[in-house]
Amino acid sequence: MPVEHLQAVPHLTTALNGPLLQLESLLLAEQTRIEAWLRGEWRKTPAPFYASVDLRNAGFKIAPVDTNLFPAGFNNLNPAFLPLCIQAMQAKIEQTCPTASNILLIAEDHTRNPFYLESLATLRDIIHKGGYRVRIGAFGADMTGPRVHRLGPGRELTIDPLSRQGDKLQAGDFVPCLIILNNDLISGVPPLLRDLDQPITPPPDLGWALRLKSEHFRHYRRVVEAFGEQLGIDPWLIKPLYRHCEGLDFLRREGEHCLARQVETLLEEIGRKYDEYGVDKQPFVVIKADAGTYGMGIMSVTDPAQVRNLNRRQRTRMSSMKGGGRVDRVILQEGVYTFETWGEAQSVAEPVVYMIDRFVVGGFYRVHTERGQQENLNAPGMHFQPLAFAESCNNPDEHRSPDAEPNRFYTYGVIARLALLAAAREMAALHTGG
Amino acid sequence: MPVEHLQAVPHLTTALNGPLLQLESLLLAEQTRIEAWLRGEWRKTPAPFYASVDLRNAGFKIAPVDTNLFPAGFNNLNPAFLPLCIQAMQAKIEQTCPTASNILLIAEDHTRNPFYLESLATLRDIIHKGGYRVRIGAFGADMTGPRVHRLGPGRELTIDPLSRQGDKLQAGDFVPCLIILNNDLISGVPPLLRDLDQPITPPPDLGWALRLKSEHFRHYRRVVEAFGEQLGIDPWLIKPLYRHCEGLDFLRREGEHCLARQVETLLEEIGRKYDEYGVDKQPFVVIKADAGTYGMGIMSVTDPAQVRNLNRRQRTRMSSMKGGGRVDRVILQEGVYTFETWGEAQSVAEPVVYMIDRFVVGGFYRVHTERGQQENLNAPGMHFQPLAFAESCNNPDEHRSPDAEPNRFYTYGVIARLALLAAAREMAALHTGG
Repeated sequence: MPVEHLQAVPHLTTALNGPLLQLESLLLAEQTRIEAWLRGEWRKTPAPFYASVDLRNAGFKIAPVDTNLFPAGFNNLNPAFLPLCIQAMQAKIEQTCPTASNILLIAEDHTRNPFYLESLATLRDIIHKGGYRVRIGAFGADMTGPRVHRLGPGRELTIDPLSRQGDKLQAGDFVPCLIILNNDLISGVPPLLRDLDQPITPPPDLGWALRLKSEHFRHYRRVVEAFGEQLGIDPWLIKPLYRHCEGLDFLRREGEHCLARQVETLLEEIGRKYDEYGVDKQPFVVIKADAGTYGMGIMSVTDPAQVRNLNRRQRTRMSSMKGGGRVDRVILQEGVYTFETWGEAQSVAEPVVYMIDRFVVGGFYRVHTERGQQENLNAPGMHFQPLAFAESCNNPDEHRSPDAEPNRFYTYGVIARLALLAAAREMAALHTGG
Repeated sequence: MPVEHLQAVPHLTTALNGPLLQLESLLLAEQTRIEAWLRGEWRKTPAPFYASVDLRNAGFKIAPVDTNLFPAGFNNLNPAFLPLCIQAMQAKIEQTCPTASNILLIAEDHTRNPFYLESLATLRDIIHKGGYRVRIGAFGADMTGPRVHRLGPGRELTIDPLSRQGDKLQAGDFVPCLIILNNDLISGVPPLLRDLDQPITPPPDLGWALRLKSEHFRHYRRVVEAFGEQLGIDPWLIKPLYRHCEGLDFLRREGEHCLARQVETLLEEIGRKYDEYGVDKQPFVVIKADAGTYGMGIMSVTDPAQVRNLNRRQRTRMSSMKGGGRVDRVILQEGVYTFETWGEAQSVAEPVVYMIDRFVVGGFYRVHTERGQQENLNAPGMHFQPLAFAESCNNPDEHRSPDAEPNRFYTYGVIARLALLAAAREMAALHTGG
């Protein structure tokens, strides 16, 4: 990674940043109250094992748009902050399984994606340097023996096939005392993982086969309402508005009408908030599958008519899911403009924040040179340049301006942890049926 | 701090580094076993709140010579690793007092030492950035109101007088829910601290008024015997031999004979180990007060005759203690050569390692231009140049040579944590009377 990438932070290319500066100032001034509030929440609802949260910074608002409980992309973090990851990992593993010593990391199925393999290798190193023996395993009928991937000079990654002896899962001859999932289980919980004697984290029922984005944002809405009330913040400044539609069949054009109506209502709702804050921009809505990491299609629309006149190709894309399922439920999310740009080319830059347990351990920007401010930069097949955060997210400096680097990163870390708290509540609700 | 100070690591100026390279290689190869062993020990005996450990690196051995449970010098740590300190502090405070929100830091008495004030300010910032309200208080009849120290442009430090309302200690009008001691209580536990309703950490009975160095090294000896047995390491390679003498009165020349005899025995013991390892150096012994941070006098001797012929001035110095007490008990510690040097002037450099809870969070070298390899660089009034560790101590790199920077720092961190474990056992013994 070029050194200059570590030295700067994207610019906000909008004059509409009054509310954000106010928000950043407030978060900075209220840091001890915020941290005390979060500590209280983690006592009630422990944080997930790890997570990454995609943020959008529009200058006039900043909000999470996706919370991944099986994060990849660890290779994009600033190597200078690996010690922070190692320390947080030690704390989290000891809390999850105090006597663990052998750890199995379950990777995505059938992956040969070099970026993902680099992320796995970084995650393996973080756990290993924390003082654990680590092996990586994967599901798949094609896994007949260990698979060795060469990553670079002297670096390799071995993925072992998984098997089961009674109640114990093993990878090759390695019997773990703790299993860490880095597989979003998009196709459901495999029989090999059921009723194991070994602890698994995050719990397999948080896999995307069962999890709904709308459920996450329902929890997120409650989190930011409570948080906003504590601090006197309009929750809209830190959340995307959303709606969802069920019983869809894009191919048969079933539910199109309902979808168009929801888009219309949501656009109006966004419009009213834009008016309130004097935002002179066109509201837009992002439509994606409610289940699954992402559908094959993600649409960004500014008019309900756009969902009524989908062509055959668009309908096919919107209806098919990663992993092969059929999309019958979508989430309509307020589109949040991305007004952070990087470099002379003013490439759009989106922050992604990483957490291990309740600790923010780093992040990076997805810098994209080809897409616009309204588009989704995490779409399938998307290429981006990672730009590691130059500083940590836990070291704000009250003597500097509210949007100085360490303070901007602190803001990111607060918003990302609010999304993490929503995920923690999702997890708790799954286990209590609440 | 000049940038070049962060870029390099002192050199070992000895050819006698065979055993150390072997030791470093072993620690690196056995990292997961070491960490698993330490985790098991921390479960049995929780680590102290924080500590700093002075190490000596002779090339042929590396050993702790002092373990401070009320550490100063936080200002000398690499600012790049403050996030690591903040995160460890958050974890430790939550474990010590989950609901804490207001924290009182008790400083040394009557201090105007600018270096100590900088350390206090750094410690305050670490706790504050962890998300707590912090105030600093101090004892002393001269403390009639808040005292404001200006530290630099825009930075100040306020020290409040302490008072008591019933079972609660307060600093000014600030009532803490947790009290952190950064005062070694050399003159005993002040009445203000007795039978408080608020938790205090580290416990006041670990203050130097009650703690004995020989007790620490008795625990340390047991720690390294167990550790050495686990890994097949001669414990001598990581511990200083020691003895102690009681019932001394330097001024009346009482106990001089016993002292000389112990020096002689210890020198012989060291000599035998030097022979065993082919170390062609003169054994020496360091004599210091067994209680207290340090006596006013610290002697380094190579011959028993040197303690029989003390002149009046030497006897006065050896008998008086910081805080005004009389030294009647000394520890005789194997002198460990310092073969780490820094810069073209080959200044002697001694590592000091910092821990918060069980986490190694950084360290620095005391670089001294005027003293020799046998002398104590932490003597009263000593000046040194701090040289912050360039890397963290938890990120070893098995692909590099065993004494590459990150691996040397990992070694320091292991040895320092063995001393920390000894301190944890001291603490546990105090509370069980064991």
